[in-house]
Amino acid sequence: MASTESDFLKALYLDWGDRMVANPNMTIPDLRALFDEWEKPTFEPEDVTYKTDTVGGVKGIWAYPIGCDKSKVMVYTHGGGFAVGSSSSHRKLAGHVAKALGVSILVLDYRLAPEHPFPAQVEDAVSVYKALLADGIAAKNIGTIGDSAGGNLAISSVLKFRELGLELPGCVIAFSPWLDMELTGGTLKSNEATDGLVSTPVLEGMRGMFLGENGSPTDPIANPLKSDLAGFPPLYVNAGSVETLLDDALRVSDQAKAAGVNVTLSVADGMQHVFPFLAGRAPEADAEIAKIASWYKAL
Amino acid sequence: MASTESDFLKALYLDWGDRMVANPNMTIPDLRALFDEWEKPTFEPEDVTYKTDTVGGVKGIWAYPIGCDKSKVMVYTHGGGFAVGSSSSHRKLAGHVAKALGVSILVLDYRLAPEHPFPAQVEDAVSVYKALLADGIAAKNIGTIGDSAGGNLAISSVLKFRELGLELPGCVIAFSPWLDMELTGGTLKSNEATDGLVSTPVLEGMRGMFLGENGSPTDPIANPLKSDLAGFPPLYVNAGSVETLLDDALRVSDQAKAAGVNVTLSVADGMQHVFPFLAGRAPEADAEIAKIASWYKAL
Repeated sequence: MASTESDFLKALYLDWGDRMVANPNMTIPDLRALFDEWEKPTFEPEDVTYKTDTVGGVKGIWAYPIGCDKSKVMVYTHGGGFAVGSSSSHRKLAGHVAKALGVSILVLDYRLAPEHPFPAQVEDAVSVYKALLADGIAAKNIGTIGDSAGGNLAISSVLKFRELGLELPGCVIAFSPWLDMELTGGTLKSNEATDGLVSTPVLEGMRGMFLGENGSPTDPIANPLKSDLAGFPPLYVNAGSVETLLDDALRVSDQAKAAGVNVTLSVADGMQHVFPFLAGRAPEADAEIAKIASWYKAL
Repeated sequence: MASTESDFLKALYLDWGDRMVANPNMTIPDLRALFDEWEKPTFEPEDVTYKTDTVGGVKGIWAYPIGCDKSKVMVYTHGGGFAVGSSSSHRKLAGHVAKALGVSILVLDYRLAPEHPFPAQVEDAVSVYKALLADGIAAKNIGTIGDSAGGNLAISSVLKFRELGLELPGCVIAFSPWLDMELTGGTLKSNEATDGLVSTPVLEGMRGMFLGENGSPTDPIANPLKSDLAGFPPLYVNAGSVETLLDDALRVSDQAKAAGVNVTLSVADGMQHVFPFLAGRAPEADAEIAKIASWYKAL
């Protein structure tokens, strides 16, 4: 049974839906302003400081929990269909995760679609990863993390690191990842009535901006479900049980397991897309982040 | 000569103007999303932590610089014409000021117009002030601070404290305050071409929402220029030289001086409305905040 506090996220999503329907020609800048309201569900994580920075030519912000181990870095690629979302919308969420893990997190403002279609986002993640390695951060002490489209990037960027022959990071965390660019997941239909935000038409619009004129929905970097995950780092994947993208989490988990990857799947009952946004507000998000911290510390 | 870095704020304001012109029926929620972009100019202040809280029934966030004196509290009332803006848009700005002053700052999410017209905003500031006093914070260790419409509230709330017979706070800081609800300032016209954001029509719209059906533009709490400032705490007022609301800063400074108040006026050459939003990015904002810190520490 979902907590009353968790209703906030669904209400926000339904409000966005109403506003997008009322203003069907909303511009990209206005959509970005709308989606930056993703910060609203999250309470401030206490005892976390921040820093504006540019790493490997990519802008972003660091979340530094007081006393964190700065030799350990999680690189956060935010969600928002590769087109919206920002370090601002995801700062507090990243801060909660950083604090629970006891590490620093760098939230990237990677280049966004449609101005910058695929593979600009992956290229930015590669630049950042190389810069961190060049700064002396050990690969095993780096992890990638992201939600929704950024959950895709957290996985696809590691596939790209592998393709480039780079040493792989120590772990990967994906919240409600959107992976299947062919949009074939069964929950797109079966959870259509319960998901407050994500629907096939929304994903089709985002996919068009992301892939642009030259990208393919079966490119194994754009669509990690088309990749061989053998040799992939330990992977933590979650989703809410009522969301349309649930099947993407289930499938990547199954495929990773079949490929021999150390994978942990967490499906939260009654929760919406990227329910960790409720950190500090709703018990489900706090419990999930605590669970991730236990997983991380046991790696 | 304004720095290149400071151009960011004017560009943001002009972009907002273009977007509001392109979408003249923008709803209040969408306008709030737009104005929450006010956080963009500001770089993260380092070594500052935050906390979501409710004080005196009013929601808000604390900015706690590491090592700050928590017995000293500045209450920040954000700008945005009493109708938009939030603790989110102003968090980083408040963090910079808190760090420079070495104190904690509470950024209020006071009730907004038009849903809550005047005097809801002042009532919220009173509730918070009473709660801080009840928590044992000495009046002399409390200050009020705000920008634009929130600069009005930083002043008008103290006028209300006086009316209620409360002990007055130790100081008041107003960035580019909007005080004159009659809109008679000469710079509304003379700086019309140089101000990227604030114009008479914009202020007329905001005033209508703020005053609602029953408020008067000459009410001495809604319009502090109509108040006797004798006995007012030390007051720091600033403005940019090219902004339309410059005259409000000049007039309140003159009136405060004439009433025997310890007042400091700072007019920054070539700067736009609430130029301290450029903190961390542009030297003018950092210099201004350093100047305020010197002023505060010498009180």
